Formats: sequence, C-alpha cells, structure tokens
Amino acid sequence: MTLQSQARFITLEGGEGAGKSTVLSALRGFLAERGFEVVSTREPGGTPLAEQIRGLLLDTHHESPSAEAELLLMFAARAQHVREVILPALQRGAWVISDRFTDSSYAYQGAGRGLDPDFIATLEHRVVGIAPAMTLLLDIGVAHARERTRGRDLVPGGNGPDRIEREQDHFFERVRAGFLARAEAEPGRFRVIDATQSVEAVATQAVTCLRALVAA
Amino acid sequence: MTLQSQARFITLEGGEGAGKSTVLSALRGFLAERGFEVVSTREPGGTPLAEQIRGLLLDTHHESPSAEAELLLMFAARAQHVREVILPALQRGAWVISDRFTDSSYAYQGAGRGLDPDFIATLEHRVVGIAPAMTLLLDIGVAHARERTRGRDLVPGGNGPDRIEREQDHFFERVRAGFLARAEAEPGRFRVIDATQSVEAVATQAVTCLRALVAA
Repeated sequence: MTLQSQARFITLEGGEGAGKSTVLSALRGFLAERGFEVVSTREPGGTPLAEQIRGLLLDTHHESPSAEAELLLMFAARAQHVREVILPALQRGAWVISDRFTDSSYAYQGAGRGLDPDFIATLEHRVVGIAPAMTLLLDIGVAHARERTRGRDLVPGGNGPDRIEREQDHFFERVRAGFLARAEAEPGRFRVIDATQSVEAVATQAVTCLRALVAA
Repeated sequence: MTLQSQARFITLEGGEGAGKSTVLSALRGFLAERGFEVVSTREPGGTPLAEQIRGLLLDTHHESPSAEAELLLMFAARAQHVREVILPALQRGAWVISDRFTDSSYAYQGAGRGLDPDFIATLEHRVVGIAPAMTLLLDIGVAHARERTRGRDLVPGGNGPDRIEREQDHFFERVRAGFLARAEAEPGRFRVIDATQSVEAVATQAVTCLRALVAA
C-alpha cells in the first residue's frame, strides 16, 4: 500500500523548545485569515482515547512501557487520530495541522530507541496510510533546546518534564539525527527551519513555506 | 525471527462461558501439588500498564478503538506482559498459565474483525517472540456459551458485559471458527476440549493434558 499524500495536511516536527506552539499558532492564523477551516491537533493524542493513551505514554509515576510497547501505543493512538479526526477534517475540505505525526515515531522510537525502521514503515502503511503534503522540521541543537525549556520545568504547579522529556542528551542527539535523515530522504515534503532563530523569525519562515504551498 | 516455544508456558483460549477460570484453577492446583512455582495471569493485562490498556480496550462508556487501534493496543499490552511477567517467570523456572494469549488476537481481531493475519503474524514475531508449549482451546457453541454467561451479566452490582462481549453472535461465530482453524493448523500445540461438558469434566480433561506434558 502506498501512503496517500494529503494536500491540506501539514505536520510540525522537532524536539521540545523548538517553538512548535508559536509556529502552529502563526500557521493557523494565516489560513484562518484566508477563510479556511483549520483543525489543529497534536500527537500522541487528538481524540479522547488517544489522549488517554498519551497519558499512559508520558506518565512518570508508574510502569514504563518497553520500546516496543511504546511504539505500538503511539501507532494505536495515531490510528485513532487519523480515523476520527484527521481524515474527516480533510474530507470536508479543512486544513489539518498536527503537532507531531509519524516522523516522530521514526525519530524517537526508531533512531532514539533503536527499533527497526522497516517495522515502523509496516505500521505506517498498515494503520496510518496517509502522509502530510508538507512537514516543517524545526531543527535545534540539544543543548540549545534544553536551555530554552529549562524555565518551563520550573513553573510552579507545572508538571515538569514527561517520561520522554526525561531522557538523556545522547537520546535526543539520535532523535535529532533521525529527523534530519528523514528530511534528507524526502526533500519534497520536508522544510527544515533553523530553530535557533528567534521564535518570531521561525514563525515567519514557516508561514512563508505555507504561503508557497497554498499558492501551488 | 522464529517464535520460541517455551516448555513451561501454557495458554487457555476460548470464548466467555467456556470455563476458563475453573480450568486455570485446576491446572494451578495440579502444578502446585508437585512443588512447582506457578504464575497465572491473563490478557489483555497482567502488568499494571497492561491492565490500564485493558481498561481502554474493554470500556463501554467512551470512544471505541478502531479495529487497527484495538489490535495494536492488544499487542502493546502483550509486549509488556511478556517482558515484565512471562519471561522473567519462565527464566526462573516457574510455570506460566495465561488466560488468553496471541491466539486470541488471531481469533478476535483477525477472524472476528477481519484484519489481515499476515499483519498479526508480523506483530507476533516482532514484539512477542514466544509461543506456549501447549494451548488448551475450550470450544463451545455461541448459543450455548451465551446461555451460560447470561446469569453473570445480571449479577447486582456487576459490570455487565464489556465492549467486546457486547458483539453480536455472528462475530463470535467467526471468532470460534478462527480458533478452530488455528488448532487445526497447529495440532502439536493445541488440545481442543469440548467445553459443552460439565466444567468438572472439562477441568479433568485439561489436567490430563497437562499431566502428559509434564511427563513428556
């Protein structure tokens, strides 16, 4: 089965601290101003069941899933997300912007945890079936991103870093390399944005990419 | 990767109302009397995380998983169950008896929901990797089983049937046929027991099968 590229489906990828939320908000605004319906969503999550799965995945207080269980939980949530939210929105003509999608599984569970990318590809083809028209990879070095997120973890009453955010730097180095390798392998779909710039500059560059896509 | 058959690993399969709990208790007693450590467990479940996944799978009040999400949740729970409970027990020399295992995924999600058995086999090889030495299939017709479970659903304060138990008869007919097809394909591993007999007779027959396995 070939993945079906979806014209109005955009995904944002990159680690914590890269500015994904600001970019998402800017893209949303750009499309809404032009009268498009926009559904912005996130992974893991996006439906009530998928958000419950997210809870199991990111929980830091109980039993941690093995790498394989983590991968299958991610794809179970994604299967639900695609079927219940993403496809219905695309079918009615809306744009969908997802904060993370399948590329994150290749980067985190594949490059990060060492699971076989062929197995991930099998899951992608069997239970996802679709691919975004454009993926914005907000790329930033691990040390730089940690500097930016340090403040968040100290917010009084905040939850602190989740189970995956608590991984060590070498894990995030592998994740970053995994994202860059995917971008290199699919230059038609990926736009790599240097996320060490100010968040405003990153958002402006992201909107420029989207403008080109809408005009195409 | 070939599945590794585990000498002291036994699974029970069959629908609700077939007498699995009574059989499990009889097998446990037989092994315990001979001084063996016995770990009895169940699927979906068997670890705290896997039991939480079970909760999502059987819940009747919220969003239902798609067939694909159901399959991946089952295997996520199973990956965890094998790694955290089954393999450690087998490695220290204990016997493990599981109420349901991978055959249930072939029967319920494969034959029942129509998912491709080749995909199920891929998941089995990738994330499970082991197979029981003996599987007791407690076989009973759908109408007969419904007759037996009717009482349970009316227990005051009981939970009533779960999401999968609420399926229609034609679903359970496919599941039963799926189990019987697997038993026919692997006669060396399966023992099919006529579960229309009294539960005592079923348990006695199950213990006879186990005695032969222990002596072998």
